[in-house]
Amino acid sequence: MDVTVLEVAPRDGLQNESEIIATAAKIRLIERSIEAGLRRIEAVSFVHPQRVPQMADAEAVMAGVPRVAGVSYAGLVFNDRGLDRAMAAGVDEINVVVVATDTFSHRNQGCTTAEGIQRWHTLAKRAADSGLRRTVTIAAAFGCPFEGEVSAATVLDLVRRVAEAEPDEIALADTIGVGTPDRVRTLIAGTAALAPAAALRCHFHNTRNTGYANAIAALDAGARVLDASTGGIGGCPFAPAATGNIATEDLLYMLDRMGVTTGVRMDLVSETGVWLGDVLGTPVPALLGRAGGFPSAG
Amino acid sequence: MDVTVLEVAPRDGLQNESEIIATAAKIRLIERSIEAGLRRIEAVSFVHPQRVPQMADAEAVMAGVPRVAGVSYAGLVFNDRGLDRAMAAGVDEINVVVVATDTFSHRNQGCTTAEGIQRWHTLAKRAADSGLRRTVTIAAAFGCPFEGEVSAATVLDLVRRVAEAEPDEIALADTIGVGTPDRVRTLIAGTAALAPAAALRCHFHNTRNTGYANAIAALDAGARVLDASTGGIGGCPFAPAATGNIATEDLLYMLDRMGVTTGVRMDLVSETGVWLGDVLGTPVPALLGRAGGFPSAG
Repeated sequence: MDVTVLEVAPRDGLQNESEIIATAAKIRLIERSIEAGLRRIEAVSFVHPQRVPQMADAEAVMAGVPRVAGVSYAGLVFNDRGLDRAMAAGVDEINVVVVATDTFSHRNQGCTTAEGIQRWHTLAKRAADSGLRRTVTIAAAFGCPFEGEVSAATVLDLVRRVAEAEPDEIALADTIGVGTPDRVRTLIAGTAALAPAAALRCHFHNTRNTGYANAIAALDAGARVLDASTGGIGGCPFAPAATGNIATEDLLYMLDRMGVTTGVRMDLVSETGVWLGDVLGTPVPALLGRAGGFPSAG
Repeated sequence: MDVTVLEVAPRDGLQNESEIIATAAKIRLIERSIEAGLRRIEAVSFVHPQRVPQMADAEAVMAGVPRVAGVSYAGLVFNDRGLDRAMAAGVDEINVVVVATDTFSHRNQGCTTAEGIQRWHTLAKRAADSGLRRTVTIAAAFGCPFEGEVSAATVLDLVRRVAEAEPDEIALADTIGVGTPDRVRTLIAGTAALAPAAALRCHFHNTRNTGYANAIAALDAGARVLDASTGGIGGCPFAPAATGNIATEDLLYMLDRMGVTTGVRMDLVSETGVWLGDVLGTPVPALLGRAGGFPSAG
């Protein structure tokens, strides 16, 4: 089985850090990820700098990253202004987030879910006209920090509506780490049935130790693209207690030992995780860097 | 689906602590576990006190724990002397460990794997004559810290040989946290085929973030008893870098949300995990106590 790991540490990983990280460190993180073999990188967010100051240097980051054949850089886009910036900065793909509940949608991007879907449709059309690859992410697809449970029916109704804009990919995001394997399987099967033309991606946080089990459930159910964050860093500035993404190195450890092919060297990612802990001034949540590999660290 | 969670914090959890924990605290941990609804408790190990000083008070612990209808106390037993102690102390079930590799077996219990199997046969017969429930655990079933990979064929050959002594239960233990879901499924299917009369139990460590995915794989493959340790504490004094068991509260969180019935209150277990961190002087690895429950902590 071939699985693509999409590295999200530069964006989802770093955006929750209270200290502003130097642009050069962000670029180095991306370079190291590419050196390890990662080929899709969520590099930046074109969000208003007042909303997420950590992402204010998105243009500078994109200007500094290496352009390597086969590497695709993704940027988060929330509105027309963001799409203008994304195109000017030269990202390869855009990611538009639709939040499954109105309360969280308002906090995250100042609009209702329905308005978010409308924005996605507008942005998807413009991006398609420009030849940009387009992902739509349904955030809080497994639960909302403000409204609580989100039913599978609600999420699948959103899938149906976002699919009308013909995304290249639909991502299901467990923004606050409350998903479980059974729900993962249900949502992936439902999404595949409703939007057979779109690729499927999953985004899991390990807030309550369900993230890696969800990743395996996603693969079992047919997903072939998983988000992960080197070091397991991450969170959402607009969702309380939304801690770490699943860690790229720990995910790779499990996949490698299962014979799943990713093209990524976990030893290099694990070293980057340790390095990232030094940059951030605190050890990262990933466990591989502490436990060491088995049977060898390689 | 009904699943039994076997609480191992009092034994596998505490045995790796360098500071000796007061007997009263061990008893309180067991009491709190029972108050939360746990009904199988690995309470003690009848190992020589010089080998594992933390377990030297096994008799005192067993003398102090409440005797509650439906609660079964397990003790680890390594030899005839240990079985004598276990019977005198009044455990309800014994657990005999057979280590899958000779090197680790020597370090753990001073004998080869073949000698360990012979010991198990001797102990199983004596325990059966006394009406004690008997589990045999195959340790390092997913890999050895000294010899490296352990093949499925090796483990299943051990299953065949230990099954001849008619265990009530066979446990597969990932002592050092190197197992993956595919291997879990293979070993459970093979064990069920070779020993259909024995119940199946699994014991996972989360050393490299594979533990909870393995737990779900075990349930998918038909296991209905899972070991877990409140707080996710644990390790093996004879295996380097063998860190935490999967945490009872985090496992319960996932199972509860999947509609799996355990009869255990995760809120109480999570409170015990936080309490245990105070006892040990360091926060426990479990995440539920930090992240809080969802949609409520209850």
